[in-house]
Amino acid sequence: MKITAVIMAGGRGERFWPKSRNDRPKQFLALTKDGETMIQKTVKRLMPMVAMEDVFVVTNVSYAGLVREQLPELPEENVLLEPCARNTAPCVGLAAAVIRKKYGEAMMLVLPSDHLIRYEDMYVDTLRQAVSVAEKEQNLVTIGITPAYPETGYGYIKFERDAALGIPGVYRVERFVEKPDLDTAKEYLASHRYLWNSGMFVWKASSILINIQKLMPDIYEGLTAIEEAVGSKEYPQVLEENYEAFRSESIDFGVMEKADNIYTLPGSFGWDDVGNWLAVERINSTNELGNYIEGDVITIGTRRSTVCGGKRLIAAVGVEDLIVVDTDDAVLICAKDSTQDVKKVIENLKICNRSQLV
Amino acid sequence: MKITAVIMAGGRGERFWPKSRNDRPKQFLALTKDGETMIQKTVKRLMPMVAMEDVFVVTNVSYAGLVREQLPELPEENVLLEPCARNTAPCVGLAAAVIRKKYGEAMMLVLPSDHLIRYEDMYVDTLRQAVSVAEKEQNLVTIGITPAYPETGYGYIKFERDAALGIPGVYRVERFVEKPDLDTAKEYLASHRYLWNSGMFVWKASSILINIQKLMPDIYEGLTAIEEAVGSKEYPQVLEENYEAFRSESIDFGVMEKADNIYTLPGSFGWDDVGNWLAVERINSTNELGNYIEGDVITIGTRRSTVCGGKRLIAAVGVEDLIVVDTDDAVLICAKDSTQDVKKVIENLKICNRSQLV
Repeated sequence: MKITAVIMAGGRGERFWPKSRNDRPKQFLALTKDGETMIQKTVKRLMPMVAMEDVFVVTNVSYAGLVREQLPELPEENVLLEPCARNTAPCVGLAAAVIRKKYGEAMMLVLPSDHLIRYEDMYVDTLRQAVSVAEKEQNLVTIGITPAYPETGYGYIKFERDAALGIPGVYRVERFVEKPDLDTAKEYLASHRYLWNSGMFVWKASSILINIQKLMPDIYEGLTAIEEAVGSKEYPQVLEENYEAFRSESIDFGVMEKADNIYTLPGSFGWDDVGNWLAVERINSTNELGNYIEGDVITIGTRRSTVCGGKRLIAAVGVEDLIVVDTDDAVLICAKDSTQDVKKVIENLKICNRSQLV
Repeated sequence: MKITAVIMAGGRGERFWPKSRNDRPKQFLALTKDGETMIQKTVKRLMPMVAMEDVFVVTNVSYAGLVREQLPELPEENVLLEPCARNTAPCVGLAAAVIRKKYGEAMMLVLPSDHLIRYEDMYVDTLRQAVSVAEKEQNLVTIGITPAYPETGYGYIKFERDAALGIPGVYRVERFVEKPDLDTAKEYLASHRYLWNSGMFVWKASSILINIQKLMPDIYEGLTAIEEAVGSKEYPQVLEENYEAFRSESIDFGVMEKADNIYTLPGSFGWDDVGNWLAVERINSTNELGNYIEGDVITIGTRRSTVCGGKRLIAAVGVEDLIVVDTDDAVLICAKDSTQDVKKVIENLKICNRSQLV
């Protein structure tokens, strides 16, 4: 069966401000020293199992230029432009409809565009195994991540203990749970029965569409209208009218938490969601003082700090556990234990109508 | 007797980098919110006792433009331009020679250009009292500062306990001492016999010139040649030739530590030498979180920090005890306990031949 990849690239992630902005969110940034952007890495690591002509990127219409610039090899018709943001359920549904129209049936690897994978060979192996599970019946597969510590910022997947379908390493999902508090997260970790929900899914186009039809019939109706129009000159208008009418819904809540035949494969391929500036020192290497430095930077007596220079010199003197990010029009200086508060800066800017800085 | 002021403004202070640069040192910066530069404040606070036409500024030739720009009321011939840096003894000698040539005799208030005085009325009162001491014989007067804590960054003046000359509050200087270590500074403080050496002096032109003649005859010879040429068209060349031949010497070491008839008046007029970035929060007022903020700055969870913005937004998130200074081509981020290390940044820049940033 043909294997397609659906890269979800519509997010407006604000946690990498001031480098990420509304007009250039995280998936279009290079956060590693090799200079590749997150979405470029996402596509590149799929190449062993997906042909470029079978890679689809779903993104907001305002990012069409960035996608074409960063992924010039991608066929233009594979860039699916959302007229507005409606969360992941309409996004996945749109891709499934377009793929069904084009191929009748195909496997879909549904993947975020802004995560990092350290062991790409193992990642591909895991996806291949997921494909073998998703080929059967109408199985929906979610890739879980073996937790390393009691993270409170992710959702979790509770799985049944015995291997499912007679395949070692494949488990039936018992339920999805929201982000836990710290005590609950510790219990999850100790129980060995929970995985992190990575937001990576594998299924046939038909499997997810049948579930959307059953669980979100209103959205399914719009999707069939869009599918009908694909390739015609009415397509942009039909897409816009139907997409704007969709309610905002996540694929997790809309389908995964309610459907049957959900399986998970625990991935141990060095996944990092690169959730905030703290991740930059994790995904790059730090020097002997624990610093990660890029750009024109002088450090004196500085330890365990991340300093990302822009066009000007940054001198960091005697500082510890600090994150400094310079851009042309804004500088962030943030204590490592306060990265969650970067969003308050953005709130402040919005309140003050300083949208050019957001 | 005519009272003149001699403002020493040739320093290249590096401790306010990146705002201070070789081409705009601290005395030409505004470090308070009123926008007045240090040298402007220095001249302004003298106006109750010195006429503008009797204010002389001694500075390096490269700062002539800055002096004229910041002190436009100053007569052009009162700006004495040092062809090169030779420390304070030649600087004071040059001013004394020019003043003797112009007035025959006059009182000289010799003052740094980059200190801050909180109680200007009391400052003027102290200077007037110093004038009354300096008028007698060939007395040399130095203004001491009553220490507030065991500072190790200043020289100290040891004075004799009994009031001198029958004037309360005037003391004979026993000796000058170099910057002490902390234990010694603590002893000085406990002894009640030491003052901080502020570098402010009061004497007649004749008193200091007689002492220079006696203690530094080589320099005195050059000064008389310069004095001879004042007002002639040969002056610039005579000045340059003789000044460059001077050895570098401080007035403290060259005269004060060796002369007789040295008196000190303890000043308690809220003196601050504004020695490094820590001073900025002292000389301005901080908000209820202990922050001093200027420019376009957003603070979230930030305490006891100084943030001086430039043309761009600075966002400080969760930081404490930090100094942030933004300029067009460099940003400093410095822990408050590391301000002494700012000079290491400058050393680094010099080593790397990045003089445009120094």
